[in-house]
Amino acid sequence: MTAVDVPGDGPATDPTRDRADARLDRLSLNQVTTNRWTVAEAIDGCQRAGLPAIGLWRAPVQEVGVAAAARMVADAGLRVSSLCRGGFLTAVEAEQRKSALEENRRAIEEASALGTDCLVMVVGGLPEGSRDLAGARAQVTEGIAVLAPYAEEHGVRLALEPMHPIYCADRGVLSTLRQALDLAEQFPMEQVGVVVDSFHVWWDPDVLNQIARAAGRVCSFQVCDWITPLPPDLLMCRGMMGDGHIDFAVLRRAVDATGYLGDIEVEIFNAAVWAADPDAVVATLVRRYVTHVLGN
Amino acid sequence: MTAVDVPGDGPATDPTRDRADARLDRLSLNQVTTNRWTVAEAIDGCQRAGLPAIGLWRAPVQEVGVAAAARMVADAGLRVSSLCRGGFLTAVEAEQRKSALEENRRAIEEASALGTDCLVMVVGGLPEGSRDLAGARAQVTEGIAVLAPYAEEHGVRLALEPMHPIYCADRGVLSTLRQALDLAEQFPMEQVGVVVDSFHVWWDPDVLNQIARAAGRVCSFQVCDWITPLPPDLLMCRGMMGDGHIDFAVLRRAVDATGYLGDIEVEIFNAAVWAADPDAVVATLVRRYVTHVLGN
Repeated sequence: MTAVDVPGDGPATDPTRDRADARLDRLSLNQVTTNRWTVAEAIDGCQRAGLPAIGLWRAPVQEVGVAAAARMVADAGLRVSSLCRGGFLTAVEAEQRKSALEENRRAIEEASALGTDCLVMVVGGLPEGSRDLAGARAQVTEGIAVLAPYAEEHGVRLALEPMHPIYCADRGVLSTLRQALDLAEQFPMEQVGVVVDSFHVWWDPDVLNQIARAAGRVCSFQVCDWITPLPPDLLMCRGMMGDGHIDFAVLRRAVDATGYLGDIEVEIFNAAVWAADPDAVVATLVRRYVTHVLGN
Repeated sequence: MTAVDVPGDGPATDPTRDRADARLDRLSLNQVTTNRWTVAEAIDGCQRAGLPAIGLWRAPVQEVGVAAAARMVADAGLRVSSLCRGGFLTAVEAEQRKSALEENRRAIEEASALGTDCLVMVVGGLPEGSRDLAGARAQVTEGIAVLAPYAEEHGVRLALEPMHPIYCADRGVLSTLRQALDLAEQFPMEQVGVVVDSFHVWWDPDVLNQIARAAGRVCSFQVCDWITPLPPDLLMCRGMMGDGHIDFAVLRRAVDATGYLGDIEVEIFNAAVWAADPDAVVATLVRRYVTHVLGN
Protein backbone atom coordinates (compact mmCIF):
# COMPACT_ATOMS: atom_id res chain seq x y z
CA MET A 1 0.00 0.00 0.00
CA THR A 2 1.34 3.39 -0.95
CA ALA A 3 1.73 5.74 2.00
CA VAL A 4 -0.41 8.86 1.76
CA ASP A 5 0.25 12.26 3.33
CA VAL A 6 -2.51 14.12 5.14
CA PRO A 7 -3.96 16.61 4.71
CA GLY A 8 -4.10 16.46 0.95
CA ASP A 9 -4.13 12.72 0.28
CA GLY A 10 -1.16 12.82 -2.05
CA PRO A 11 1.50 10.12 -2.00
CA ALA A 12 3.93 10.50 0.88
CA THR A 13 6.70 12.99 0.10
CA ASP A 14 9.11 11.43 2.58
CA PRO A 15 10.15 7.86 3.42
CA THR A 16 8.06 5.89 5.88
CA ARG A 17 9.87 5.24 9.16
CA ASP A 18 9.85 2.05 11.14
CA ARG A 19 8.24 2.35 14.57
CA ALA A 20 11.52 1.19 16.11
CA ASP A 21 13.48 3.94 14.34
CA ALA A 22 15.73 5.53 16.96
CA ARG A 23 15.13 8.90 15.38
CA LEU A 24 11.66 8.91 16.93
CA ASP A 25 13.01 8.79 20.46
CA ARG A 26 12.09 12.42 21.22
CA LEU A 27 8.93 12.72 19.14
CA SER A 28 5.76 13.54 21.03
CA LEU A 29 2.19 13.72 19.78
CA ASN A 30 0.37 16.70 21.18
CA GLN A 31 -3.07 15.20 21.42
CA VAL A 32 -4.80 18.20 19.87
CA THR A 33 -3.21 17.16 16.58
CA THR A 34 -5.46 14.11 16.59
CA ASN A 35 -8.37 15.92 18.13
CA ARG A 36 -10.90 13.17 17.35
CA TRP A 37 -9.07 10.71 19.57
CA THR A 38 -9.78 10.32 23.26
CA VAL A 39 -6.84 10.13 25.64
CA ALA A 40 -6.95 6.33 25.47
CA GLU A 41 -7.07 6.34 21.68
CA ALA A 42 -4.22 8.84 21.44
CA ILE A 43 -2.10 6.70 23.76
CA ASP A 44 -2.82 3.66 21.60
CA GLY A 45 -2.02 5.67 18.49
CA CYS A 46 1.35 6.72 19.90
CA GLN A 47 2.17 3.12 20.74
CA ARG A 48 1.20 1.88 17.28
CA ALA A 49 3.45 4.47 15.66
CA GLY A 50 6.38 4.06 18.05
CA LEU A 51 6.12 7.50 19.66
CA PRO A 52 7.52 7.57 23.21
CA ALA A 53 5.66 10.65 24.46
CA ILE A 54 2.39 12.49 24.40
CA GLY A 55 1.32 16.07 25.15
CA LEU A 56 -2.01 16.17 26.95
CA TRP A 57 -4.80 18.73 27.24
CA ARG A 58 -6.75 19.37 30.39
CA ALA A 59 -10.27 18.95 28.97
CA PRO A 60 -9.86 15.44 27.48
CA VAL A 61 -7.86 14.37 30.54
CA GLN A 62 -10.67 15.53 32.81
CA GLU A 63 -13.14 13.49 30.79
CA VAL A 64 -11.48 10.30 31.95
CA GLY A 65 -10.18 11.68 35.23
CA VAL A 66 -6.65 12.81 35.96
CA ALA A 67 -5.71 9.73 37.99
CA ALA A 68 -7.03 7.36 35.33
CA ALA A 69 -5.21 9.25 32.58
CA ALA A 70 -1.99 9.16 34.57
CA ARG A 71 -2.37 5.38 34.97
CA MET A 72 -3.08 4.85 31.27
CA VAL A 73 -0.02 6.81 30.23
CA ALA A 74 2.18 4.99 32.74
CA ASP A 75 0.82 1.58 31.73
CA ALA A 76 1.63 2.40 28.13
CA GLY A 77 5.16 3.38 29.08
CA LEU A 78 4.80 6.86 27.56
CA ARG A 79 6.18 10.13 28.84
CA VAL A 80 3.88 13.11 29.23
CA SER A 81 5.84 15.85 27.51
CA SER A 82 3.53 18.68 28.60
CA LEU A 83 0.10 19.62 29.83
CA CYS A 84 -1.84 22.28 27.92
CA ARG A 85 -2.62 24.64 29.44
CA GLY A 86 -2.67 27.22 32.13
CA GLY A 87 -2.71 30.96 31.79
CA PHE A 88 -5.40 33.48 30.84
CA LEU A 89 -4.21 35.72 33.63
CA THR A 90 -5.48 39.02 32.22
CA ALA A 91 -8.84 40.45 33.23
CA VAL A 92 -10.34 43.80 34.16
CA GLU A 93 -11.89 42.57 37.41
CA ALA A 94 -9.71 41.49 40.32
CA GLU A 95 -12.25 38.75 41.03
CA GLN A 96 -11.70 37.27 37.58
CA ARG A 97 -7.94 37.35 38.01
CA LYS A 98 -8.32 35.62 41.36
CA SER A 99 -10.40 32.82 39.90
CA ALA A 100 -7.88 32.49 37.07
CA LEU A 101 -5.19 31.88 39.69
CA GLU A 102 -7.36 29.17 41.27
CA GLU A 103 -7.79 27.53 37.90
CA ASN A 104 -4.04 27.65 37.35
CA ARG A 105 -3.37 26.03 40.71
CA ARG A 106 -5.60 23.14 39.63
CA ALA A 107 -3.70 22.93 36.34
CA ILE A 108 -0.41 22.75 38.24
CA GLU A 109 -1.78 19.94 40.40
CA GLU A 110 -2.96 18.08 37.31
CA ALA A 111 0.41 18.41 35.60
CA SER A 112 2.06 17.03 38.70
CA ALA A 113 -0.40 14.12 38.90
CA LEU A 114 0.23 13.32 35.24
CA GLY A 115 3.96 13.19 35.81
CA THR A 116 4.97 16.10 33.62
CA ASP A 117 7.05 19.04 34.79
CA CYS A 118 5.79 21.28 31.98
CA LEU A 119 2.59 23.30 32.19
CA VAL A 120 2.17 25.34 29.01
CA MET A 121 0.99 28.87 29.79
CA VAL A 122 -1.08 30.84 27.28
CA VAL A 123 -1.09 34.04 29.23
CA GLY A 124 -4.21 35.76 27.87
CA GLY A 125 -4.89 38.77 25.65
CA LEU A 126 -6.16 42.25 26.30
CA PRO A 127 -9.05 42.23 28.75
CA GLU A 128 -12.44 42.84 27.15
CA GLY A 129 -12.73 46.46 26.06
CA SER A 130 -9.22 47.38 27.19
CA ARG A 131 -6.46 48.91 25.07
CA ASP A 132 -3.97 48.89 27.93
CA LEU A 133 -1.39 46.47 26.59
CA ALA A 134 1.27 47.44 29.12
CA GLY A 135 -1.28 46.91 31.89
CA ALA A 136 -2.23 43.47 30.60
CA ARG A 137 1.43 42.52 30.48
CA ALA A 138 1.85 43.70 34.05
CA GLN A 139 -1.08 41.49 35.09
CA VAL A 140 0.70 38.51 33.55
CA THR A 141 3.82 39.25 35.57
CA GLU A 142 1.75 39.52 38.76
CA GLY A 143 -0.02 36.25 38.08
CA ILE A 144 3.18 34.37 37.32
CA ALA A 145 4.73 35.70 40.53
CA VAL A 146 1.85 34.25 42.54
CA LEU A 147 1.90 30.89 40.78
CA ALA A 148 5.62 30.23 40.36
CA PRO A 149 6.37 28.99 43.91
CA TYR A 150 3.24 26.84 43.88
CA ALA A 151 4.41 25.26 40.65
CA GLU A 152 7.83 24.48 42.08
CA GLU A 153 6.27 22.88 45.16
CA HIS A 154 4.53 20.49 42.76
CA GLY A 155 7.60 19.78 40.66
CA VAL A 156 6.14 21.71 37.76
CA ARG A 157 7.54 24.59 35.74
CA LEU A 158 5.37 27.30 34.25
CA ALA A 159 6.25 27.22 30.57
CA LEU A 160 5.60 30.70 29.19
CA GLU A 161 4.55 30.47 25.58
CA PRO A 162 5.31 33.52 23.47
CA MET A 163 2.54 33.63 20.93
CA HIS A 164 2.55 34.90 17.40
CA PRO A 165 1.59 38.60 17.33
CA ILE A 166 -1.64 37.72 15.50
CA TYR A 167 -2.87 36.58 18.93
CA CYS A 168 -1.72 39.58 20.94
CA ALA A 169 -5.17 41.15 21.24
CA ASP A 170 -7.16 38.07 22.14
CA ARG A 171 -4.96 35.15 23.29
CA GLY A 172 -1.55 36.06 24.51
CA VAL A 173 0.19 39.36 25.20
CA LEU A 174 3.54 37.58 25.40
CA SER A 175 4.63 38.12 21.82
CA THR A 176 8.32 37.31 21.57
CA LEU A 177 10.78 34.89 23.08
CA ARG A 178 12.79 37.87 24.31
CA GLN A 179 9.79 39.14 26.23
CA ALA A 180 9.01 35.69 27.65
CA LEU A 181 12.63 35.34 28.83
CA ASP A 182 12.61 38.84 30.32
CA LEU A 183 9.72 37.60 32.43
CA ALA A 184 10.98 34.07 33.11
CA GLU A 185 14.37 35.32 34.30
CA GLN A 186 12.70 37.13 37.16
CA PHE A 187 12.14 33.69 38.69
CA PRO A 188 14.28 30.67 39.51
CA MET A 189 14.87 28.27 36.66
CA GLU A 190 12.97 25.55 38.57
CA GLN A 191 9.83 27.67 38.54
CA VAL A 192 9.48 29.37 35.19
CA GLY A 193 10.66 28.52 31.70
CA VAL A 194 9.56 29.03 28.12
CA VAL A 195 8.01 27.17 25.22
CA VAL A 196 9.64 27.41 21.82
CA ASP A 197 6.87 26.85 19.28
CA SER A 198 7.97 27.15 15.67
CA PHE A 199 4.65 28.63 14.54
CA HIS A 200 4.87 31.45 17.04
CA VAL A 201 8.53 32.39 16.73
CA TRP A 202 9.83 31.46 13.29
CA TRP A 203 9.49 34.99 11.85
CA ASP A 204 11.42 36.68 14.68
CA PRO A 205 14.71 38.15 13.43
CA ASP A 206 16.07 37.72 16.95
CA VAL A 207 14.89 34.16 17.51
CA LEU A 208 18.23 32.34 17.32
CA ASN A 209 19.84 34.71 19.81
CA GLN A 210 16.91 34.33 22.14
CA ILE A 211 16.88 30.54 21.89
CA ALA A 212 20.57 30.57 22.86
CA ARG A 213 19.72 32.83 25.78
CA ALA A 214 17.00 30.38 26.84
CA ALA A 215 19.50 27.68 27.82
CA GLY A 216 18.10 25.90 30.87
CA ARG A 217 14.73 27.61 30.46
CA VAL A 218 13.37 25.60 27.53
CA CYS A 219 10.50 23.50 28.91
CA SER A 220 8.96 22.50 25.63
CA PHE A 221 9.75 22.56 21.93
CA GLN A 222 6.68 22.41 19.70
CA VAL A 223 6.50 22.24 15.93
CA CYS A 224 3.99 22.90 13.18
CA ASP A 225 4.22 24.94 9.99
CA TRP A 226 3.21 28.42 8.82
CA ILE A 227 1.14 27.92 5.68
CA THR A 228 -0.08 30.41 3.09
CA PRO A 229 -2.67 31.46 2.35
CA LEU A 230 -3.34 31.35 6.07
CA PRO A 231 -6.68 29.60 6.73
CA PRO A 232 -9.30 32.19 7.76
CA ASP A 233 -9.90 30.76 11.24
CA LEU A 234 -6.84 31.98 13.10
CA LEU A 235 -7.27 29.31 15.77
CA MET A 236 -7.14 26.58 13.12
CA CYS A 237 -4.47 27.83 10.79
CA ARG A 238 -1.43 25.68 11.51
CA GLY A 239 0.14 23.40 8.98
CA MET A 240 1.82 20.01 8.86
CA MET A 241 5.59 20.36 8.84
CA GLY A 242 6.77 20.59 5.26
CA ASP A 243 3.55 22.15 3.98
CA GLY A 244 4.68 25.70 4.73
CA HIS A 245 7.52 28.14 5.07
CA ILE A 246 9.38 27.26 8.26
CA ASP A 247 12.93 25.95 8.26
CA PHE A 248 12.56 23.64 11.26
CA ALA A 249 16.07 22.27 11.28
CA VAL A 250 17.50 25.73 11.97
CA LEU A 251 15.29 26.09 15.03
CA ARG A 252 15.83 22.50 16.17
CA ARG A 253 19.61 22.84 16.05
CA ALA A 254 19.39 26.06 18.06
CA VAL A 255 17.19 24.40 20.68
CA ASP A 256 19.48 21.38 20.80
CA ALA A 257 22.45 23.70 21.33
CA THR A 258 20.87 24.98 24.56
CA GLY A 259 21.20 21.47 25.99
CA TYR A 260 17.48 20.79 25.82
CA LEU A 261 17.07 17.03 25.77
CA GLY A 262 13.30 16.87 26.09
CA ASP A 263 10.62 15.87 23.66
CA ILE A 264 9.66 17.61 20.46
CA GLU A 265 5.89 17.92 20.28
CA VAL A 266 3.87 18.15 17.11
CA GLU A 267 0.88 20.38 17.78
CA ILE A 268 -1.36 21.15 14.81
CA PHE A 269 -4.66 23.05 14.90
CA ASN A 270 -6.06 22.59 11.40
CA ALA A 271 -9.51 21.56 10.20
CA ALA A 272 -8.19 19.34 7.41
CA VAL A 273 -5.77 17.58 9.75
CA TRP A 274 -8.50 17.09 12.32
CA ALA A 275 -10.84 15.67 9.68
CA ALA A 276 -8.30 13.12 8.46
CA ASP A 277 -7.81 9.60 9.77
CA PRO A 278 -5.74 10.09 12.94
CA ASP A 279 -3.44 7.16 12.21
CA ALA A 280 -2.67 8.71 8.83
CA VAL A 281 -2.01 12.03 10.57
CA VAL A 282 0.47 10.36 12.89
CA ALA A 283 2.13 8.48 10.03
CA THR A 284 2.50 11.72 8.09
CA LEU A 285 3.90 13.68 10.98
CA VAL A 286 6.42 10.94 11.72
CA ARG A 287 7.72 11.13 8.15
CA ARG A 288 7.75 14.91 8.11
CA TYR A 289 9.41 15.09 11.53
CA VAL A 290 12.37 13.02 10.44
CA THR A 291 12.84 14.92 7.19
CA HIS A 292 12.03 18.47 8.23
CA VAL A 293 12.66 18.73 11.96
CA LEU A 294 15.61 16.43 12.38
CA GLY A 295 16.71 17.36 8.85
CA ASN A 296 20.32 17.24 7.99
CA MET B 1 -28.28 65.61 9.90
CA THR B 2 -26.78 63.15 12.36
CA ALA B 3 -23.21 62.19 11.55
CA VAL B 4 -22.71 58.49 10.88
CA ASP B 5 -19.56 56.42 11.37
CA VAL B 6 -18.38 54.01 8.70
CA PRO B 7 -18.09 51.13 8.50
CA GLY B 8 -21.08 50.18 10.56
CA ASP B 9 -23.47 53.06 9.92
CA GLY B 10 -24.00 53.81 13.58
CA PRO B 11 -24.20 57.39 14.87
CA ALA B 12 -20.79 59.03 15.17
CA THR B 13 -19.04 58.13 18.40
CA ASP B 14 -16.91 61.28 18.38
CA PRO B 15 -17.60 64.96 17.72
CA THR B 16 -17.55 66.24 14.16
CA ARG B 17 -14.61 68.55 13.48
CA ASP B 18 -14.67 71.72 11.45
CA ARG B 19 -12.55 71.60 8.31
CA ALA B 20 -10.59 74.57 9.62
CA ASP B 21 -9.78 72.78 12.88
CA ALA B 22 -6.07 73.30 13.49
CA ARG B 23 -5.87 69.79 14.86
CA LEU B 24 -6.10 68.47 11.30
CA ASP B 25 -2.89 70.18 10.25
CA ARG B 26 -0.90 66.93 10.06
CA LEU B 27 -3.65 64.57 8.93
CA SER B 28 -3.10 62.83 5.62
CA LEU B 29 -5.44 60.59 3.66
CA ASN B 30 -3.63 57.60 2.26
CA GLN B 31 -5.60 57.20 -0.92
CA VAL B 32 -6.02 53.45 -0.55
CA THR B 33 -8.41 54.23 2.32
CA THR B 34 -10.85 55.65 -0.24
CA ASN B 35 -9.96 53.13 -2.87
CA ARG B 36 -12.96 53.95 -5.08
CA TRP B 37 -11.71 57.47 -5.64
CA THR B 38 -9.35 58.42 -8.45
CA VAL B 39 -6.40 60.66 -7.64
CA ALA B 40 -8.45 63.70 -8.64
CA GLU B 41 -11.41 62.63 -6.52
CA ALA B 42 -9.20 61.91 -3.52
CA ILE B 43 -7.59 65.34 -3.83
CA ASP B 44 -11.04 66.93 -3.93
CA GLY B 45 -12.12 64.83 -0.96
CA CYS B 46 -9.13 66.00 1.07
CA GLN B 47 -9.93 69.60 0.24
CA ARG B 48 -13.61 69.25 1.17
CA ALA B 49 -12.64 67.77 4.54
CA GLY B 50 -9.81 70.20 5.27
CA LEU B 51 -6.96 67.67 5.07
CA PRO B 52 -3.65 69.22 4.09
CA ALA B 53 -1.93 66.10 2.77
CA ILE B 54 -2.41 62.93 0.79
CA GLY B 55 -0.51 59.65 0.52
CA LEU B 56 -0.44 58.40 -3.07
CA TRP B 57 -0.10 54.99 -4.68
CA ARG B 58 1.82 54.33 -7.84
CA ALA B 59 -0.91 52.58 -9.83
CA PRO B 60 -3.63 55.28 -9.58
CA VAL B 61 -0.99 57.95 -10.13
CA GLN B 62 0.18 56.22 -13.29
CA GLU B 63 -3.40 56.14 -14.56
CA VAL B 64 -3.40 59.92 -14.81
CA GLY B 65 0.33 60.29 -15.36
CA VAL B 66 2.90 61.30 -12.80
CA ALA B 67 3.32 64.87 -14.08
CA ALA B 68 -0.43 65.46 -14.17
CA ALA B 69 -0.86 64.04 -10.67
CA ALA B 70 1.95 66.26 -9.39
CA ARG B 71 0.24 69.29 -10.92
CA MET B 72 -3.14 68.39 -9.46
CA VAL B 73 -1.72 68.02 -5.97
CA ALA B 74 0.22 71.27 -6.25
CA ASP B 75 -2.79 73.14 -7.61
CA ALA B 76 -4.83 71.91 -4.67
CA GLY B 77 -2.16 73.07 -2.25
CA LEU B 78 -1.77 69.63 -0.72
CA ARG B 79 1.40 67.95 0.49
CA VAL B 80 2.20 64.43 -0.71
CA SER B 81 3.04 62.68 2.52
CA SER B 82 4.34 59.50 0.89
CA LEU B 83 4.33 57.35 -2.21
CA CYS B 84 3.37 53.69 -1.86
CA ARG B 85 5.37 51.77 -2.74
CA GLY B 86 8.70 50.32 -3.63
CA GLY B 87 10.26 47.10 -2.44
CA PHE B 88 9.67 43.44 -3.29
CA LEU B 89 13.39 42.92 -3.41
CA THR B 90 13.42 39.18 -2.67
CA ALA B 91 13.53 36.59 -5.43
CA VAL B 92 15.25 33.33 -6.23
CA GLU B 93 16.52 34.45 -9.63
CA ALA B 94 19.12 37.21 -9.96
CA GLU B 95 17.27 38.41 -13.06
CA GLN B 96 14.11 38.99 -11.02
CA ARG B 97 16.03 40.88 -8.37
CA LYS B 98 17.59 43.03 -11.06
CA SER B 99 14.24 43.94 -12.58
CA ALA B 100 12.93 44.71 -9.08
CA LEU B 101 15.76 47.23 -8.72
CA GLU B 102 14.75 48.82 -12.04
CA GLU B 103 11.18 49.08 -10.84
CA ASN B 104 12.35 50.68 -7.61
CA ARG B 105 14.41 53.25 -9.48
CA ARG B 106 11.25 54.24 -11.35
CA ALA B 107 9.38 54.47 -8.04
CA ILE B 108 12.11 56.76 -6.67
CA GLU B 109 11.82 58.98 -9.73
CA GLU B 110 8.05 59.13 -9.34
CA ALA B 111 8.28 60.05 -5.66
CA SER B 112 10.66 62.83 -6.57
CA ALA B 113 8.37 64.08 -9.34
CA LEU B 114 5.42 64.08 -6.96
CA GLY B 115 7.35 66.17 -4.48
CA THR B 116 7.49 63.68 -1.63
CA ASP B 117 10.69 62.60 0.06
CA CYS B 118 9.13 59.37 1.34
CA LEU B 119 8.98 56.17 -0.68
CA VAL B 120 7.37 53.43 1.40
CA MET B 121 9.22 50.13 0.99
CA VAL B 122 7.42 46.81 1.40
CA VAL B 123 10.48 44.65 1.11
CA GLY B 124 9.01 41.33 -0.03
CA GLY B 125 8.50 37.93 1.54
CA LEU B 126 10.21 34.59 1.12
CA PRO B 127 10.89 33.84 -2.52
CA GLU B 128 8.57 31.23 -4.03
CA GLY B 129 9.42 27.80 -2.63
CA SER B 130 12.16 29.09 -0.36
CA ARG B 131 12.42 28.61 3.39
CA ASP B 132 15.63 30.61 3.64
CA LEU B 133 14.46 33.53 5.75
CA ALA B 134 17.97 34.71 6.58
CA GLY B 135 18.79 34.62 2.88
CA ALA B 136 15.71 36.66 1.97
CA ARG B 137 16.65 39.22 4.58
CA ALA B 138 20.15 39.42 3.14
CA GLN B 139 18.66 40.07 -0.31
CA VAL B 140 16.73 43.00 1.15
CA THR B 141 19.92 44.47 2.57
CA GLU B 142 21.64 44.08 -0.79
CA GLY B 143 18.79 45.74 -2.64
CA ILE B 144 18.59 48.67 -0.26
CA ALA B 145 22.35 49.18 -0.57
CA VAL B 146 22.00 49.50 -4.34
CA LEU B 147 19.00 51.84 -4.20
CA ALA B 148 19.89 54.11 -1.28
CA PRO B 149 22.33 56.46 -3.11
CA TYR B 150 19.95 56.67 -6.06
CA ALA B 151 17.17 57.70 -3.70
CA GLU B 152 19.29 60.43 -2.13
CA GLU B 153 20.23 61.80 -5.55
CA HIS B 154 16.50 62.28 -6.11
CA GLY B 155 15.80 63.81 -2.72
CA VAL B 156 13.90 60.71 -1.64
CA ARG B 157 14.36 58.50 1.40
CA LEU B 158 13.67 54.78 1.32
CA ALA B 159 11.16 54.30 4.13
CA LEU B 160 11.55 50.73 5.35
CA GLU B 161 8.23 49.44 6.60
CA PRO B 162 8.45 46.72 9.22
CA MET B 163 5.39 44.57 8.59
CA HIS B 164 3.31 42.58 11.02
CA PRO B 165 4.71 39.05 11.31
CA ILE B 166 1.55 37.68 9.66
CA TYR B 167 3.10 38.94 6.42
CA CYS B 168 6.60 37.56 6.94
CA ALA B 169 6.19 34.64 4.54
CA ASP B 170 4.53 36.45 1.67
CA ARG B 171 4.88 40.26 1.90
CA GLY B 172 7.66 41.51 4.05
CA VAL B 173 10.54 39.84 5.86
CA LEU B 174 11.20 43.00 7.85
CA SER B 175 9.16 42.12 10.91
CA THR B 176 10.07 44.55 13.67
CA LEU B 177 11.05 48.17 14.00
CA ARG B 178 14.28 47.03 15.64
CA GLN B 179 15.15 45.01 12.57
CA ALA B 180 14.22 47.86 10.22
CA LEU B 181 16.43 50.24 12.20
CA ASP B 182 19.30 47.75 12.26
CA LEU B 183 19.13 47.91 8.48
CA ALA B 184 18.43 51.63 8.11
CA GLU B 185 21.34 52.59 10.35
CA GLN B 186 23.75 51.03 7.88
CA PHE B 187 23.00 54.01 5.63
CA PRO B 188 23.02 57.78 5.99
CA MET B 189 19.90 59.32 7.46
CA GLU B 190 19.25 61.13 4.19
CA GLN B 191 18.98 57.83 2.34
CA VAL B 192 17.10 55.34 4.48
CA GLY B 193 14.48 55.70 7.21
CA VAL B 194 11.54 53.77 8.57
CA VAL B 195 7.76 53.77 8.57
CA VAL B 196 5.94 53.47 11.87
CA ASP B 197 2.58 51.89 11.07
CA SER B 198 0.40 51.22 14.10
CA PHE B 199 -1.10 48.05 12.61
CA HIS B 200 2.31 46.50 12.08
CA VAL B 201 4.04 47.43 15.33
CA TRP B 202 1.45 47.93 18.09
CA TRP B 203 1.97 44.45 19.60
CA ASP B 204 5.75 44.77 19.89
CA PRO B 205 6.87 44.84 23.54
CA ASP B 206 9.92 46.79 22.41
CA VAL B 207 8.11 49.32 20.23
CA LEU B 208 8.43 52.41 22.40
CA ASN B 209 12.18 51.91 22.82
CA GLN B 210 12.58 51.41 19.11
CA ILE B 211 10.51 54.47 18.21
CA ALA B 212 12.76 56.51 20.49
CA ARG B 213 15.77 55.01 18.75
CA ALA B 214 14.25 55.99 15.39
CA ALA B 215 14.72 59.72 16.00
CA GLY B 216 15.60 61.31 12.68
CA ARG B 217 14.74 58.13 10.79
CA VAL B 218 10.95 58.34 10.90
CA CYS B 219 9.81 59.03 7.34
CA SER B 220 6.15 58.21 7.80
CA PHE B 221 3.67 57.57 10.58
CA GLN B 222 0.63 55.59 9.48
CA VAL B 223 -2.41 54.62 11.49
CA CYS B 224 -5.23 52.10 11.35
CA ASP B 225 -6.58 49.68 13.94
CA TRP B 226 -6.18 45.99 14.78
CA ILE B 227 -9.68 44.53 14.90
CA THR B 228 -10.94 41.18 16.13
CA PRO B 229 -12.04 38.83 14.87
CA LEU B 230 -9.52 39.58 12.16
CA PRO B 231 -11.26 39.56 8.75
CA PRO B 232 -10.27 36.41 6.84
CA ASP B 233 -8.56 38.22 3.96
CA LEU B 234 -5.27 39.22 5.54
CA LEU B 235 -4.70 41.93 2.95
CA MET B 236 -8.03 43.54 3.85
CA CYS B 237 -8.10 43.21 7.60
CA ARG B 238 -7.36 46.68 8.93
CA GLY B 239 -9.79 48.67 11.00
CA MET B 240 -10.86 52.28 11.43
CA MET B 241 -9.16 53.84 14.44
CA GLY B 242 -11.30 53.27 17.50
CA ASP B 243 -12.85 50.04 16.19
CA GLY B 244 -10.06 47.88 17.57
CA HIS B 245 -7.43 47.33 20.20
CA ILE B 246 -4.65 49.84 19.53
CA ASP B 247 -3.83 52.67 21.90
CA PHE B 248 -2.83 55.20 19.24
CA ALA B 249 -2.05 58.06 21.56
CA VAL B 250 0.78 56.11 23.18
CA LEU B 251 2.39 55.53 19.80
CA ARG B 252 1.71 59.08 18.59
CA ARG B 253 3.33 60.61 21.64
CA ALA B 254 6.38 58.38 21.17
CA VAL B 255 6.68 59.38 17.51
CA ASP B 256 6.22 63.06 18.39
CA ALA B 257 8.98 62.73 20.97
CA THR B 258 11.45 61.76 18.23
CA GLY B 259 10.95 65.19 16.72
CA TYR B 260 8.97 63.90 13.76
CA LEU B 261 6.91 66.79 12.46
CA GLY B 262 5.54 65.14 9.34
CA ASP B 263 2.07 64.02 8.44
CA ILE B 264 0.08 61.24 10.02
CA GLU B 265 -1.46 59.06 7.34
CA VAL B 266 -4.61 57.04 7.70
CA GLU B 267 -4.22 53.89 5.62
CA ILE B 268 -7.04 51.36 5.83
CA PHE B 269 -7.40 48.18 3.78
CA ASN B 270 -10.88 46.94 4.61
CA ALA B 271 -13.72 45.77 2.38
CA ALA B 272 -16.41 47.50 4.43
CA VAL B 273 -14.49 50.78 4.45
CA TRP B 274 -13.89 50.54 0.72
CA ALA B 275 -17.58 49.84 0.09
CA ALA B 276 -18.72 52.89 2.07
CA ASP B 277 -19.25 56.40 0.72
CA PRO B 278 -15.72 57.85 0.58
CA ASP B 279 -16.78 61.21 2.00
CA ALA B 280 -18.30 59.40 4.98
CA VAL B 281 -15.06 57.44 5.36
CA VAL B 282 -13.07 60.67 5.47
CA ALA B 283 -15.51 62.29 7.89
CA THR B 284 -15.25 59.27 10.17
CA LEU B 285 -11.48 59.12 10.10
CA VAL B 286 -11.24 62.82 10.85
CA ARG B 287 -13.36 62.36 13.98
CA ARG B 288 -11.49 59.24 15.05
CA TYR B 289 -8.12 60.81 14.37
CA VAL B 290 -8.75 63.71 16.72
CA THR B 291 -10.11 61.50 19.48
CA HIS B 292 -7.91 58.43 19.22
CA VAL B 293 -4.66 59.50 17.59
CA LEU B 294 -4.26 62.98 19.00
CA GLY B 295 -6.06 61.84 22.15
CA ASN B 296 -5.33 63.54 25.39
